[in-house]
Amino acid sequence: MPAIVEALRGVLPADVLVTDTDVIASYAHDEAEWAPFGTPAAVVRPTTSEQVQQVVLACLEHDVAVVPRGAGTGLSGGANALDGCVVVSLEKMNRIVEINATERLAVVQPGVVNDHLRAAAGEQGLWYPPDPASAPWSTIGGNCATNAGGLCCVKYGVTRDYVLALEVVTGTGELVRVGRRTAKGVVGYDLVGLMVGSEGTLGIITEITVKLRAARAPETTVVGFFPDVVSAGNAVQGVADAGIAPFALELVDQVCLKAVDDWKNMGLLDMCSEHLDGKSEGRGGAAVLLGRIDDPGAVGEQEATRMVDVFTSAGASFAARSTSEEEAETFFAARRLAYPALERLGDTLTEDVCVPKAEVPGMLSRIEEIAAKHDTVIANIAHAGDGNLHPLLITEPGDDAARERAQAAFAEIIDAALAVGGTVTGEHGVGLLKMPGLEQEQTGVVIDMQRAIKRALDPKGIFNPGKVFSA
Amino acid sequence: MPAIVEALRGVLPADVLVTDTDVIASYAHDEAEWAPFGTPAAVVRPTTSEQVQQVVLACLEHDVAVVPRGAGTGLSGGANALDGCVVVSLEKMNRIVEINATERLAVVQPGVVNDHLRAAAGEQGLWYPPDPASAPWSTIGGNCATNAGGLCCVKYGVTRDYVLALEVVTGTGELVRVGRRTAKGVVGYDLVGLMVGSEGTLGIITEITVKLRAARAPETTVVGFFPDVVSAGNAVQGVADAGIAPFALELVDQVCLKAVDDWKNMGLLDMCSEHLDGKSEGRGGAAVLLGRIDDPGAVGEQEATRMVDVFTSAGASFAARSTSEEEAETFFAARRLAYPALERLGDTLTEDVCVPKAEVPGMLSRIEEIAAKHDTVIANIAHAGDGNLHPLLITEPGDDAARERAQAAFAEIIDAALAVGGTVTGEHGVGLLKMPGLEQEQTGVVIDMQRAIKRALDPKGIFNPGKVFSA
Repeated sequence: MPAIVEALRGVLPADVLVTDTDVIASYAHDEAEWAPFGTPAAVVRPTTSEQVQQVVLACLEHDVAVVPRGAGTGLSGGANALDGCVVVSLEKMNRIVEINATERLAVVQPGVVNDHLRAAAGEQGLWYPPDPASAPWSTIGGNCATNAGGLCCVKYGVTRDYVLALEVVTGTGELVRVGRRTAKGVVGYDLVGLMVGSEGTLGIITEITVKLRAARAPETTVVGFFPDVVSAGNAVQGVADAGIAPFALELVDQVCLKAVDDWKNMGLLDMCSEHLDGKSEGRGGAAVLLGRIDDPGAVGEQEATRMVDVFTSAGASFAARSTSEEEAETFFAARRLAYPALERLGDTLTEDVCVPKAEVPGMLSRIEEIAAKHDTVIANIAHAGDGNLHPLLITEPGDDAARERAQAAFAEIIDAALAVGGTVTGEHGVGLLKMPGLEQEQTGVVIDMQRAIKRALDPKGIFNPGKVFSA
Repeated sequence: MPAIVEALRGVLPADVLVTDTDVIASYAHDEAEWAPFGTPAAVVRPTTSEQVQQVVLACLEHDVAVVPRGAGTGLSGGANALDGCVVVSLEKMNRIVEINATERLAVVQPGVVNDHLRAAAGEQGLWYPPDPASAPWSTIGGNCATNAGGLCCVKYGVTRDYVLALEVVTGTGELVRVGRRTAKGVVGYDLVGLMVGSEGTLGIITEITVKLRAARAPETTVVGFFPDVVSAGNAVQGVADAGIAPFALELVDQVCLKAVDDWKNMGLLDMCSEHLDGKSEGRGGAAVLLGRIDDPGAVGEQEATRMVDVFTSAGASFAARSTSEEEAETFFAARRLAYPALERLGDTLTEDVCVPKAEVPGMLSRIEEIAAKHDTVIANIAHAGDGNLHPLLITEPGDDAARERAQAAFAEIIDAALAVGGTVTGEHGVGLLKMPGLEQEQTGVVIDMQRAIKRALDPKGIFNPGKVFSA
């Protein structure tokens, strides 16, 4: 038995320490396709911050790597285990500690599921906006680690915009609180913002205080059917040019709709065919844009009308405010189901580039070219309103040549995004899959600044080593 | 002549290097009262990023401290000079480089005045929200250094919420870009958020990319006249309890109104007397609350009505939606003029505590007690809606005993804010005046984490040494 397991046995309750090899194997990686992972020496499922601290102290003493983990829904390999490491799963620390309507904040343990926080806030007329597509499963701790985005970010911002304070176990094994409960505060450096998005490389988050907003006004949905993805991209640029601020603006292409239909038989393709009236034939596949507006009253009406006009001008075969909330919900459900539906078709490598809004049509066109060049099926879903594209590269499992073509296409999409001023990761994080991309996007000096911060806060280098950037 | 001046003469155009002792003296401190400052060896007013880099390289070579400076409107001593340092004034780098309506961003040099950016954005139907009371004079670079707040932060956030990217000269003399131009991005650590609010201790900001919003809807103003500050505080808590999200919620007390009237003769006290109808007599001084709502249409109407009701329930002698935009403007103008008006009355030490919203009434009451205990005139202005209080301690110039009483009151206000879960600085920064407060608010471990980051990014310790926390 490794010395670290012996040490953990000495400081943790028996049910916190997992040593069963089958169970350990189930914690060895997240949902990133083709990202390497090793076999942990142990998995721990602590129930208190003090237990997390004990684990870190033991790992410091034995010089063993610590890999923190939420629900494991990550798509970049950030939670993947290293051989001999200790995986710290925060899933049992899933208590909502406080929801305070006057201060508009919530205090939660890291294992609280995103949707559970949203529901609990909703009961008090409050709202926690960040809504990654993984919201039914992913945790607030994991959302903090990756600075998760989502559908409503285009108007309401990402996880970091909502985190007020954190409790953290540091690289020296201390349990500290950083941040504040007040609406404002500028005392010292922004350690909270630094921890958020650091993908478990600077500490382990053991409690989170987030801002809440008032529950938002009812929504108007605008649906546009486009004969091809590029004209949908033109509509996205048009919305930005017009200064419309949608609550969400999502793109779902025909490959996704078909995959969802094949799985759930929702009649999406029939709806498409009806509205497209044959206009998409020979144009590489149709796309649907889903816009939502939450401005109240007459302003919302006006913005929805403007969005319909923009969609039409950009070449929509059909665009309208949804008269049926059911139809609108069907399409948003399809958008949320797209990823699991596509996973049924084969191995699915998920891209996450984000480009300036004016570059969305050109980038969608480049993705089509790259798909053809590398003979790879690429489905498109996108948080289109903020230029965050998720081309999904699908290959037959076990087909090594197809995998290599997909990986080449993945790299070329990154090149294309960087060439137009984009970033290699909009919301999924660097993890393992985007480490080469980070090196392309950032200069050596900027990476060295981050290495210096990493050494400053994690001097023994035990937190999630080998992720984000090389030591 | 000091060696550093000789070195700077060799690398800078003649008009960039200031050696005239009278001019140098005018750059020796900001507007903080009773904060120590020394005499710089030189002041430089660079016009390019490369000149800033040359200055930093020369200072690194000669081991000379660098103190960056915007307009010098700071209230904590963050820009105060050290003996023998080089002050880098960014005032000549005042160009708006780009305003991009589609991407909703602006690129500016650090010396651009806050109001100038707002005006330029406004010409394109866009809006830069952060609006410190110093907006007519303070610069975006200085706003970034202190993470400045303002009136509309209560709804729209502070400077850090708007900074997308920075160009920075680092502690190793490199000129780097950090951040992004895209709506989202999570590649690596949040170096942008770390630089913002670091008060010139981690680098010199030479260019700033900020998010813009669409120009906001017209505003409805609600004015409440309260017989005492504590009942005004109760109304602030009531607004938070009711879940109203005002665009601004400002408190101005009678001492401020009288100071503005004495200076500008705006008839504010007459307006007050009329509405208070004698009810404030013997209650320690009246206060006015100014609420603004920017929700459009019927929702805005409804929120304004709810705010009037809350003000009335909390004990306002008179509360109403302002029927006259002129009256509303008069009061907001008074709020903006309060600080210079009070400075006419004597030396003015500005507090900046921020407390939870539920603690606002109690904190205002404690401030009254502290004023009485220390026989110090304390005027109150506050960004009340987010609990950010600015008690202003006014003393007769040259009266040392009065100064000591004011300083004791200042320290006791900090103690009181911390006791109710507040922070020692909501928006002005630590600088010199809040260094003891930072040590009260944060644990040694948390301060050590910041010291480690400081050493990591500024290994020779040349940037603004002795500010924020001791080395």
